[in-house]
Amino acid sequence: MIQENGHVTSPKGFQAAAGYAGIRRNPNRYDLALIVADHPCTTAAVYTRNVVQAAPLKISKTHLADGKAQAIIINSGNANCCTMDGNNVALGMCRHVAENLSIPIDEVIVSSTGVIGVPLPLAPIANTIPKLTSQLSRDGGLDAAHAIMTTDTFAKHAATTISINGTDVTIGAIAKGSGMIHPNMGTMLCFATTDADIPKTLMQDLLQAAVDDSFNMVSVDGDTSTNDMVVLMASGAAKNTPFSLNDDDYKAFVKALQELFVYLAKAIAKDGEGATRLLTCQVLEAANRQDARLIARSVVSSNLLKAAIYGADANWGRILCAAGYSGARFNPDTFSLTIQSQVGSLLVCDAGMHVPFDEEEATRLLSTDHVTLIVKLGMGEACAEAYGCDLTCEYVHINGDYRS
Amino acid sequence: MIQENGHVTSPKGFQAAAGYAGIRRNPNRYDLALIVADHPCTTAAVYTRNVVQAAPLKISKTHLADGKAQAIIINSGNANCCTMDGNNVALGMCRHVAENLSIPIDEVIVSSTGVIGVPLPLAPIANTIPKLTSQLSRDGGLDAAHAIMTTDTFAKHAATTISINGTDVTIGAIAKGSGMIHPNMGTMLCFATTDADIPKTLMQDLLQAAVDDSFNMVSVDGDTSTNDMVVLMASGAAKNTPFSLNDDDYKAFVKALQELFVYLAKAIAKDGEGATRLLTCQVLEAANRQDARLIARSVVSSNLLKAAIYGADANWGRILCAAGYSGARFNPDTFSLTIQSQVGSLLVCDAGMHVPFDEEEATRLLSTDHVTLIVKLGMGEACAEAYGCDLTCEYVHINGDYRS
Repeated sequence: MIQENGHVTSPKGFQAAAGYAGIRRNPNRYDLALIVADHPCTTAAVYTRNVVQAAPLKISKTHLADGKAQAIIINSGNANCCTMDGNNVALGMCRHVAENLSIPIDEVIVSSTGVIGVPLPLAPIANTIPKLTSQLSRDGGLDAAHAIMTTDTFAKHAATTISINGTDVTIGAIAKGSGMIHPNMGTMLCFATTDADIPKTLMQDLLQAAVDDSFNMVSVDGDTSTNDMVVLMASGAAKNTPFSLNDDDYKAFVKALQELFVYLAKAIAKDGEGATRLLTCQVLEAANRQDARLIARSVVSSNLLKAAIYGADANWGRILCAAGYSGARFNPDTFSLTIQSQVGSLLVCDAGMHVPFDEEEATRLLSTDHVTLIVKLGMGEACAEAYGCDLTCEYVHINGDYRS
Repeated sequence: MIQENGHVTSPKGFQAAAGYAGIRRNPNRYDLALIVADHPCTTAAVYTRNVVQAAPLKISKTHLADGKAQAIIINSGNANCCTMDGNNVALGMCRHVAENLSIPIDEVIVSSTGVIGVPLPLAPIANTIPKLTSQLSRDGGLDAAHAIMTTDTFAKHAATTISINGTDVTIGAIAKGSGMIHPNMGTMLCFATTDADIPKTLMQDLLQAAVDDSFNMVSVDGDTSTNDMVVLMASGAAKNTPFSLNDDDYKAFVKALQELFVYLAKAIAKDGEGATRLLTCQVLEAANRQDARLIARSVVSSNLLKAAIYGADANWGRILCAAGYSGARFNPDTFSLTIQSQVGSLLVCDAGMHVPFDEEEATRLLSTDHVTLIVKLGMGEACAEAYGCDLTCEYVHINGDYRS
């Protein structure tokens, strides 16, 4: 059960704080967040697959080489990417956090999001870190969720609690991302915390599994960023019996983490820059999981379709077309498509052929704020789900002048 | 030298005509075109790689199995794709042309473009074909160029003449496409004719080579269509000495064909739905041709970048970013980027790092109608060029309500 008010300090053993360091132009918005665990945590991360990786990613990878971390410092408003002094600034952010918290520098992870290629000054961040460390609190997670926003129009955070062998464990997370979101990687920022006790050897696979079916299935505009990462810190404060690979507790935890990430992935898609509708594509009856994933992502990534969804135009040929160029193999003769939303559902294509349908009914279904396209392939039993949004003029306006 | 007024009846041995069959709603626009050669021609075609292929493509493939054709019938306004009776309608279009011209049905190629999933009625086309055959003329190519337009705002056509061993040979072509244009295939319609005498065994490779560096390097929105094809018919009427594989004449012909196709590819990119600027990405110093192509296409396909170009915003991080997720391997530390247009050029990134530049000068360069992004990788000697356009609100409007 998703707790919509939850966040990174919902699990036991974590504190957070946020503030304004002066990186963003608007002094009324936070631009610096700090998440701190009471003790070093078993920690794993998934990074962007972009060849170009920002300085904070490089530093974080080094610091996470031992699979442990105790703090995360995140700034918004500047990506600290492709600038001469990037590594020093990222390292400097870690050093100031470490000194203020009296922990080793390699227990600190650093993350940045914002414009690329503009030098990030260290001084204002260094000056703000003492304030943040003094304000750390057990419910600071919500402020942190706000501080990592860029073009996001609402903060993304949630938590969930499950029982592991009779012990309640909680997972909480904050996320950001509206533009530059795409499959093929974490492709946004998400910081998750849990009080579960998780063996170090399971952390990476567990995180990757949850990311694959959630954040890796979101597309806003097909661009993957240089800075994106998903981090999971496990404090062990819940004192559950540690689980083993593929036992029931392991599976239950992965499922809960995945549900939390899907909730956040949908929030990111819904908040796609300029978006007016959340778009879900469910692919059923695929020959294999890979084909199902390819098609689902191709459909939610199609500009032509996204513009049609914006216009509530049931131009289903574009969906078949996007499936057709996805790289997946299928037989168009067994392809069917149903448009579904809160107000009903409508079969528009069956056995690869047009099904006469009521255009007004289609427009009614498509004019809601969450449209689901159900693709059945008749090829097998595999399925996948991807999340996207419509393409609007607002997207163009936001990105036509992002830097100013 | 490109003749901008040229078209498919510029080469010797071809006639064309166009008319209104009633498929489009607007009776003031042609929707049916017929191109006819005096004699059967050596003919090759390249088709969409989309898994879903429209009925006319299937029929044309069958008819082109012998590498010969004498006529092409093309309608706009309806793709004849994913409808129950599609194959019969496509075949019927060929049959009516064949009967009217007294040629075998398998000498006729058929092509359609427009909305998917709406039945295409044969009768109005059949009724219009006799009129078109009676109006065939040596300068009907321009009308044909207009008849194949869909959301295109101008007709795309050109010709070029070269000397093959002392004999002048001409190549002419008409093309269409503004949305749904993307690398990975012809991805639009192009009908080319030549009076050159080309050995049948060379036709397919020669056409593919020219398409690879032209139409396959165009992206308007990343979607590939179910209907796209490029056809080349060679009448032999110029009576040149037939050339052999890779001799100088062969190379000169491929170069001329490629230049003609690049001219049309740029026209298609420039006429991208709602576009205000033509965008060219030149990739230099790549390790290999494949990497150069991947990066060039990834850059011109990035929504984020396309929106920034629309806004004349020199957000060059998005270019580096798009290169980074293209799948090509390169070292960001040797990446450089220059923005170039009619009014000057500006280095904005060198050795993977921000170069301080005059923002006003950048805006001035980006505010022109043709912007070229020159990416140097410092990895080797391979290069490639791709063509695209900016992303505008107008694109969203056009595609939000394409069918009505």
